[in-house]
Amino acid sequence: MSQISALDLIARGSDEILKRDDLQARLALGRPLRIKAGFDPTAPDLHLGHTVLLNKLRQFQDLGHTVIFLIGDFTGMIGDPSGKSATRKALSREDVLANAETYKAQVFKVLDAERTEVRFNSEWFGAMGAADMIRLASTHTVARMLERDDFAKRYAGQQPIAIHEFLYPLVQGYDSVALRADVECGGTDQKFNLLMGRALQEHHGQAPQVVLTMPLLVGLDGVAKMSKSLGNYIGVTDPAIDIVNKTMKIGDALMWNWIELLSLEIGIDEAAALKTDVEAGALNPRDVKLRLARELATRFHDADAAQTAIAGWHAAVTGEGDVTALPLQDVAVPAEGLRIAALLTAAGITPSNSEANRKLKERAVKVDGAVVEDAGLVFMPGFEGVLQVGKRNFARVRLIG
Amino acid sequence: MSQISALDLIARGSDEILKRDDLQARLALGRPLRIKAGFDPTAPDLHLGHTVLLNKLRQFQDLGHTVIFLIGDFTGMIGDPSGKSATRKALSREDVLANAETYKAQVFKVLDAERTEVRFNSEWFGAMGAADMIRLASTHTVARMLERDDFAKRYAGQQPIAIHEFLYPLVQGYDSVALRADVECGGTDQKFNLLMGRALQEHHGQAPQVVLTMPLLVGLDGVAKMSKSLGNYIGVTDPAIDIVNKTMKIGDALMWNWIELLSLEIGIDEAAALKTDVEAGALNPRDVKLRLARELATRFHDADAAQTAIAGWHAAVTGEGDVTALPLQDVAVPAEGLRIAALLTAAGITPSNSEANRKLKERAVKVDGAVVEDAGLVFMPGFEGVLQVGKRNFARVRLIG
Repeated sequence: MSQISALDLIARGSDEILKRDDLQARLALGRPLRIKAGFDPTAPDLHLGHTVLLNKLRQFQDLGHTVIFLIGDFTGMIGDPSGKSATRKALSREDVLANAETYKAQVFKVLDAERTEVRFNSEWFGAMGAADMIRLASTHTVARMLERDDFAKRYAGQQPIAIHEFLYPLVQGYDSVALRADVECGGTDQKFNLLMGRALQEHHGQAPQVVLTMPLLVGLDGVAKMSKSLGNYIGVTDPAIDIVNKTMKIGDALMWNWIELLSLEIGIDEAAALKTDVEAGALNPRDVKLRLARELATRFHDADAAQTAIAGWHAAVTGEGDVTALPLQDVAVPAEGLRIAALLTAAGITPSNSEANRKLKERAVKVDGAVVEDAGLVFMPGFEGVLQVGKRNFARVRLIG
Repeated sequence: MSQISALDLIARGSDEILKRDDLQARLALGRPLRIKAGFDPTAPDLHLGHTVLLNKLRQFQDLGHTVIFLIGDFTGMIGDPSGKSATRKALSREDVLANAETYKAQVFKVLDAERTEVRFNSEWFGAMGAADMIRLASTHTVARMLERDDFAKRYAGQQPIAIHEFLYPLVQGYDSVALRADVECGGTDQKFNLLMGRALQEHHGQAPQVVLTMPLLVGLDGVAKMSKSLGNYIGVTDPAIDIVNKTMKIGDALMWNWIELLSLEIGIDEAAALKTDVEAGALNPRDVKLRLARELATRFHDADAAQTAIAGWHAAVTGEGDVTALPLQDVAVPAEGLRIAALLTAAGITPSNSEANRKLKERAVKVDGAVVEDAGLVFMPGFEGVLQVGKRNFARVRLIG
């Protein structure tokens, strides 16, 4: 592969590269580059949003480069010393190592373990004295730090910023010095911190790293950044059937975006061709989505699990085939049973009984693949089957008394 | 001495005490209190301005308390890591120890060595890790730090503030924790940093120290704070004759202020009585100033040296007695000599020839105690004698060709 095409591959899907010429020059060096990415030691549960970055790292590995998977345990073991955040309590050494194992189990579904160094920044910060921290703090000004978006907003809004928060970007930046990183990859929300690495490397006489930012993945709702707290995510340890079901529910516009950021199989040219076909009515977008769902389920499980999950999804939406691949959800109902509208709402398929009744009138409700119109239909404890509203919302339920 | 009068003695001349009730309670504890004062390890040349604080510390010692003379060598050995200040280069361990010896030679002219602990903050900060510094930084907010006068001005004026400058007040404050200080004394310009000590002690579960600030001494010019860079100072290692001559030149208003802040012999009641006598014309203010000059020369030298210096000063201003105690200043003149006005200016007694001529007309110029009016008088190389303008300005000069 020529240097130019390597650059194109790396640039694909990225938000920004600082600086592109530098990246090109590094790629031309003919040695494995050191590609750094930092991860929070407190949150080892990855979702698809994180894999946008992992995919980019994997591309570097496929070109022969070394990924440094950096776990920021030094600050993790300090926690939030101001004590204001209950969720940021200090991690023990054991916590850190356990979280690192959890990370590894997940990230090596994407990354090539042979070309990955897992590192901890306590390696170098643990040996540093208070005076070293003062020297590090001397390299930047208060005004520069207050330029960071979230600091600027909090300062303007008279929200407190503890002084140690100004040290954390410097700690993160210094990691690039300690690791002699050639490139650092991160989300667009990390750009300020990634630039710190450049500045500190220059301060220490190193060539500044190339900074490559990746867009933040939009979640299942099609609106907000994918995050655990919003619930709009697919976890990389989710069952294959959940990965398929959730992927099949996303809107068509989001699908093209996910393909760009998540697919390792559908290249940019093929994606464009697929889109043309869909727009011309020659291809059902559902079939494109199925391909993406299968790729994701295969990546985080395997081909067999993906096939079973796809079959389960298919059975659910058509009422044909084997639905037992779908997860079975228990729903508690009174001894006298529940009317269909109340059941759909209790199962989380419709937001309210009135919405459920509207869907019944629209003939959009199916039970085991057959349309149901009778709002008076009552389901008793012991019933087991697939409830569906529209094309995308369904659940396999078992009613318990 | 009762507790009440001890409190009055300590409060005398101070600018502010936070909090006075706390100080009273501590004085009533019946144990030696730990009185902290911090000193810059880079500047061991003390002038009278520093002795205002030393005098206050001495009063604590006379009441049985222990003074902790703290040398801030930890930050001194870091210097200015941003490299912006050429004058704040890092001190070596040897520099620090040498400066400490210089300090001791000077401060024990005022302090009681038996009741003084000389300490270095590298004792505790040298053993601290980077994580400890982060924890220390977490105790205060950026907004709180930007309240400090000089930071506020620099931030508003878009002057850079390096982040480590926010750490230094915290370092200074933490010293109070490490020393378990009961009281910290400093100049009014140190108030913010002294309050840091209170906050950090509370954070560490200690009773917060009492903060006692002393006014900044006004220098010889009667206007600006005494400082080496302004040249308006008397150094504690200056020759006795310089201490006397310079003290005798200050204005009467400044004299009363100096008596309050510098004299250990003239109490507040006596000072008031002297002032009443001077205002009533019953006492020449020069005699009060002589007493202060003698006290200062005695403190930093001894009674004999002070007596000789006073005699030299007297001889100079009266033309009688032994002027050889006065320092001899060489003035270079042309082979054809200098007229008196030009000579007075060359010797630094008058600011200009026109001012010198005006003084001649006013019959305010004396040579060896005799009034000179003849502006045509020429002084040749080889001349040696005392030149005087008005009561206070004089010099013993030798003209060299």
